[in-house]
Amino acid sequence: KRPRAYGIHLGVLPPGPLNAITDVPGVRVGQVTIQEGKAIRTGVTAIIPHAKNQFQQKSPAAIYIGNGFGKLMGYSQVEELGTLETPIVLTNTLSVPTVADALIDYTLRQPGNEQVRSVNALVGETNDGFLNDIRGRHVTKQHVLDALEQAQSGPVREGNVGAGTGTVCFGFKGGIGTSSRKLPASLGGYTVGVLVQTNFGGVLQIAGVPIGEKLGQYAYRDKLDGSCMMVVLTDAPLDARNLKRLAKRAFMGLAKTGGIASNGSGDYVVAVSTAYQLPHETRSSFDENKVLRNDDVSSLFMAAIEATEEAIVNSLFAADTMTGDQGHTVEKLPVDKVLNWLKQAGQIR
Amino acid sequence: KRPRAYGIHLGVLPPGPLNAITDVPGVRVGQVTIQEGKAIRTGVTAIIPHAKNQFQQKSPAAIYIGNGFGKLMGYSQVEELGTLETPIVLTNTLSVPTVADALIDYTLRQPGNEQVRSVNALVGETNDGFLNDIRGRHVTKQHVLDALEQAQSGPVREGNVGAGTGTVCFGFKGGIGTSSRKLPASLGGYTVGVLVQTNFGGVLQIAGVPIGEKLGQYAYRDKLDGSCMMVVLTDAPLDARNLKRLAKRAFMGLAKTGGIASNGSGDYVVAVSTAYQLPHETRSSFDENKVLRNDDVSSLFMAAIEATEEAIVNSLFAADTMTGDQGHTVEKLPVDKVLNWLKQAGQIR
Amino acid sequence: KRPRAYGIHLGVLPPGPLNAITDVPGVRVGQVTIQEGKAIRTGVTAIIPHAKNQFQQKSPAAIYIGNGFGKLMGYSQVEELGTLETPIVLTNTLSVPTVADALIDYTLRQPGNEQVRSVNALVGETNDGFLNDIRGRHVTKQHVLDALEQAQSGPVREGNVGAGTGTVCFGFKGGIGTSSRKLPASLGGYTVGVLVQTNFGGVLQIAGVPIGEKLGQYAYRDKLDGSCMMVVLTDAPLDARNLKRLAKRAFMGLAKTGGIASNGSGDYVVAVSTAYQLPHETRSSFDENKVLRNDDVSSLFMAAIEATEEAIVNSLFAADTMTGDQGHTVEKLPVDKVLNWLKQAGQIR
Amino acid sequence: KRPRAYGIHLGVLPPGPLNAITDVPGVRVGQVTIQEGKAIRTGVTAIIPHAKNQFQQKSPAAIYIGNGFGKLMGYSQVEELGTLETPIVLTNTLSVPTVADALIDYTLRQPGNEQVRSVNALVGETNDGFLNDIRGRHVTKQHVLDALEQAQSGPVREGNVGAGTGTVCFGFKGGIGTSSRKLPASLGGYTVGVLVQTNFGGVLQIAGVPIGEKLGQYAYRDKLDGSCMMVVLTDAPLDARNLKRLAKRAFMGLAKTGGIASNGSGDYVVAVSTAYQLPHETRSSFDENKVLRNDDVSSLFMAAIEATEEAIVNSLFAADTMTGDQGHTVEKLPVDKVLNWLKQAGQIR
Repeated sequence: KRPRAYGIHLGVLPPGPLNAITDVPGVRVGQVTIQEGKAIRTGVTAIIPHAKNQFQQKSPAAIYIGNGFGKLMGYSQVEELGTLETPIVLTNTLSVPTVADALIDYTLRQPGNEQVRSVNALVGETNDGFLNDIRGRHVTKQHVLDALEQAQSGPVREGNVGAGTGTVCFGFKGGIGTSSRKLPASLGGYTVGVLVQTNFGGVLQIAGVPIGEKLGQYAYRDKLDGSCMMVVLTDAPLDARNLKRLAKRAFMGLAKTGGIASNGSGDYVVAVSTAYQLPHETRSSFDENKVLRNDDVSSLFMAAIEATEEAIVNSLFAADTMTGDQGHTVEKLPVDKVLNWLKQAGQIR
Repeated sequence: KRPRAYGIHLGVLPPGPLNAITDVPGVRVGQVTIQEGKAIRTGVTAIIPHAKNQFQQKSPAAIYIGNGFGKLMGYSQVEELGTLETPIVLTNTLSVPTVADALIDYTLRQPGNEQVRSVNALVGETNDGFLNDIRGRHVTKQHVLDALEQAQSGPVREGNVGAGTGTVCFGFKGGIGTSSRKLPASLGGYTVGVLVQTNFGGVLQIAGVPIGEKLGQYAYRDKLDGSCMMVVLTDAPLDARNLKRLAKRAFMGLAKTGGIASNGSGDYVVAVSTAYQLPHETRSSFDENKVLRNDDVSSLFMAAIEATEEAIVNSLFAADTMTGDQGHTVEKLPVDKVLNWLKQAGQIR
Repeated sequence: KRPRAYGIHLGVLPPGPLNAITDVPGVRVGQVTIQEGKAIRTGVTAIIPHAKNQFQQKSPAAIYIGNGFGKLMGYSQVEELGTLETPIVLTNTLSVPTVADALIDYTLRQPGNEQVRSVNALVGETNDGFLNDIRGRHVTKQHVLDALEQAQSGPVREGNVGAGTGTVCFGFKGGIGTSSRKLPASLGGYTVGVLVQTNFGGVLQIAGVPIGEKLGQYAYRDKLDGSCMMVVLTDAPLDARNLKRLAKRAFMGLAKTGGIASNGSGDYVVAVSTAYQLPHETRSSFDENKVLRNDDVSSLFMAAIEATEEAIVNSLFAADTMTGDQGHTVEKLPVDKVLNWLKQAGQIR
Repeated sequence: KRPRAYGIHLGVLPPGPLNAITDVPGVRVGQVTIQEGKAIRTGVTAIIPHAKNQFQQKSPAAIYIGNGFGKLMGYSQVEELGTLETPIVLTNTLSVPTVADALIDYTLRQPGNEQVRSVNALVGETNDGFLNDIRGRHVTKQHVLDALEQAQSGPVREGNVGAGTGTVCFGFKGGIGTSSRKLPASLGGYTVGVLVQTNFGGVLQIAGVPIGEKLGQYAYRDKLDGSCMMVVLTDAPLDARNLKRLAKRAFMGLAKTGGIASNGSGDYVVAVSTAYQLPHETRSSFDENKVLRNDDVSSLFMAAIEATEEAIVNSLFAADTMTGDQGHTVEKLPVDKVLNWLKQAGQIR
């Protein structure tokens, strides 16, 4: 049961029907969970923006770096050109090269890409090395291809799944979370969807209720690598410059959960618009796209903040206690206690 | 009476004795309020990092731009060289040139600066044009020199004072606010002090309680220029790179109050360390300063987030209802109602 | 007589008819030279992108910072929003506030701007404090308004004029320079125009001939503030992202003259497209502009490099020996010797 | 025979004894050339900054992005933390993941790294897909480990070697090039060494002589991916902020050869100081390093510009005509003609 089903409402804008990144039309998510023996707790989560050949029909995109202690691959080309040319795949820190290699395979093999000799694979990660035998690098290229193959629209699994299988957040079991917001028609009617891989520290707050403090979980003192990967999709017609601004707002949503972007955190936001594509090849010298004016982006900003905050909380509610590498155990968020406190605070509606 | 005196505790770290930016040893604040007739509602707030000649003894410094729809002056030199060479002065948008000119006067006249031919004045602003006849540009150079002259340590006035005289925040009367955090000795014992000039939109939350929503104040829909200037001082020995990271955390504090950094907002953070200075001239070719390692900055990050959040809330509690230009009136935050809601939410201790 | 008239050809693309920034249709330049008594050697150079109200019809724009030891005002809003809302005015370092104040006056007074309460004045500068009594701040608001008023299309005066009156470049007298390039029709037929205010160091090279070395002028050792302001206008339809890339290429042009962007240099490039405007107010929520694709910008990059290199050389050829503040004298480039060396090197055609 | 041996002197500062990146004490270079059959023309070039365990003794470092159409991996962590924790390895575009994976292997296996669970591999690339069957991804992890193993001080092979085996520059055969500059004792006596992998376009100039124009090689019109990887090492004690400034100057050196950083170019500079290291673990909370003041970096800037320019020219002189994938042939620079033109221009001393 997700937080919203308990009556927890974060923010003022309504979610889309699935309250998931897949509320953005055309977006698909595929996840492969790799959980074997006592020590392997990792996986892959793939987000595919649209149904066409992503390399040939590039999406306007931007990346915001909240805290850059991370190994996300693909940053500079997105920054320079404003376009995304592969799906986005999340995994663990030391498996980034394997995943990138698989994304290159995937791209080179796609019909229409026979002449492609340059691929900017976009791969994000967080470090699941507390629960997972990360040094073993157990993600294979096939896992990635499977995730891409299985990607679908509809509800998205949350918690200990895909790239969130072995992650830890605020001292509790983290994982994958997702949420969305749909603007009213008067503000354009656009949808903003967010998917997060939560693995970061701070002192947890839910709707401002100091959960971490009440539970004595002050997860900002140690030097563990944390991290949060955030992916923001929208059908609003934004260009790369305004997508970068939108991406930054997801980082503000992280702040609202009590995250502090500690020194060891790799906090990255990838923002993509599905409203139009930029063709790899065309006879025209021009792009002629209708994009939102600066003056009309603020409500999207709010949507990104709210959906990110909720996606993070969703990941915590969905995750289960896990024991992994070296016998390490991370407990799940004590949901009953949390609900009780939220009720006392008037945050259950 | 400040929020903390009512029992409102934001975050987990304790404030310094004054709960003000002046808890950082040596920091002084001077404010001149310009309130005349029916239409003039503006002023100047100056922050002086140390008692020495600021140009000759530059402070390590950095500036983070949350949303850059603003006119802060002095950015690029601080970014390039990592140093601050004048006090920081806040004012209204259209008075930045006047204030900069006054800061140049101030610097050129200081004993020891007779040969100075280049001054990077640091001036921040927000737009008080709803309550103030901003087009009249009523700030004079003398106002600035007075603020610098009167700057002192000790408690800092908050609310409708100095550069906060005519500002509006979340649809309520905003103004100047300040707060601080003092790390425990085990984390270095450092102080982080914050001063804000609040003039921005969003939907107000205090300790997560959705005040804006309860009061029907959704201040993100219109296209008014908002803005928040944040100044962070610390006695922790940080270099410019880590000061920039610290500055970014103040922006996370803003997020926790419900701010969204809307399109029209100029959200800037200036972060300065008082732990050491970089001399303008010296025979040595080297800087030999003891600075905190990356691994030891996370608790300072948390302090900056908390102090910024509290400084913003403090500005709202301190501000009073004001009528100004064109008869515009902005109501103060209804503190009694707010306290009641916070009490119900268990956020009064 | 300009270098090209002597047969010096820098680069491979042809200039426009005037070989000036005013080859870009609609662009006007106005300059006021302030030369009084023995010590005042300064001025103002204004560039106006188009004939309409610049605030109401904002130009797509970007700023690249080569080396940020400078006081350019207006950076962050251009970076955030991608638009220019005032003319660009150049002056000396300590007169930036006065010029900004005048630009605000100019903007507030323009018909149609009666409700404007926020103006992002764009002011660039270099430090003419060796020849000019810069501490006296002799530029007045009227000088600025005069420059704006007198701005015109057609040939642009170079050398000791306007903001270049008192500048020094490579140890020789610098000043204002301008140049342009016109792409062949097969590459779009666009014009790129550049105007520079040259005040920087290094070891001068012209068409690769080591002039500075031959003349024993090694202008990189001392700690004087240098700087180069570069303004790039084009009628190519570029958005802000590609304008920023174009701006960066002007900095490459500076490199080709032997400039090194020394520590004390403030090297800024402002790039603006005149191909379309972004209205301040409109009923539409959308921008629908036809802009050049990434794939089609490289020849514009080359044009910006070449025009900047030539504009810098033009400034040196046009400048005359000057004596100013404290009896300081800066000699003009010994053009005869230079021509002789270039001839020997086969660089005169 | 290298250009300098012919009497070509670029710039005014003297090179170190080897005129190579290995003039910086302790720096080692290892290269593996992969040339098989008719279509495989690629390789690996590794640069190791110091003899200690690079992960445990991180080097101060920075990365400057000239034009970001490239796949360099490792950017954001260097930017955030200011440190390099692996050797730098260059290869072809589609082999970046393989190389990164090998660098992770290398790091995890090093004695002392048994607990390491996070590695920021730094891998640069250019696209050799015209001469090399790049889609075949023929670089293996063993190639990378071999390059690291074989790395040594002393002279560095240039031209068709290592990561430069299959590259193309200005329409001629490019490759690996290296150069250095040694400052006089009065300016600190520091060495700056540069290594480049040249694969970019523009119109070639050598010492300002328009070689590309004379040979009709206008390599800026097509849409091929170009790129230039530049690695700058120095024994000057610079912190990350000033290393970033130094890195930017290498890009200025590229400009002097006629490079234009075209749309399709991935031009990256990695700058590293060998003067001190930042330990991965230590009991102290502080870094106490003696670093050069801002005022003393300008002559290093000049050194980086000159060494980069010369390294690029060196790569062209050393490279040989090559035939590769699909029968494509790229001719070497016609050195005799070039020398003749340079002689006529007085550029042979």
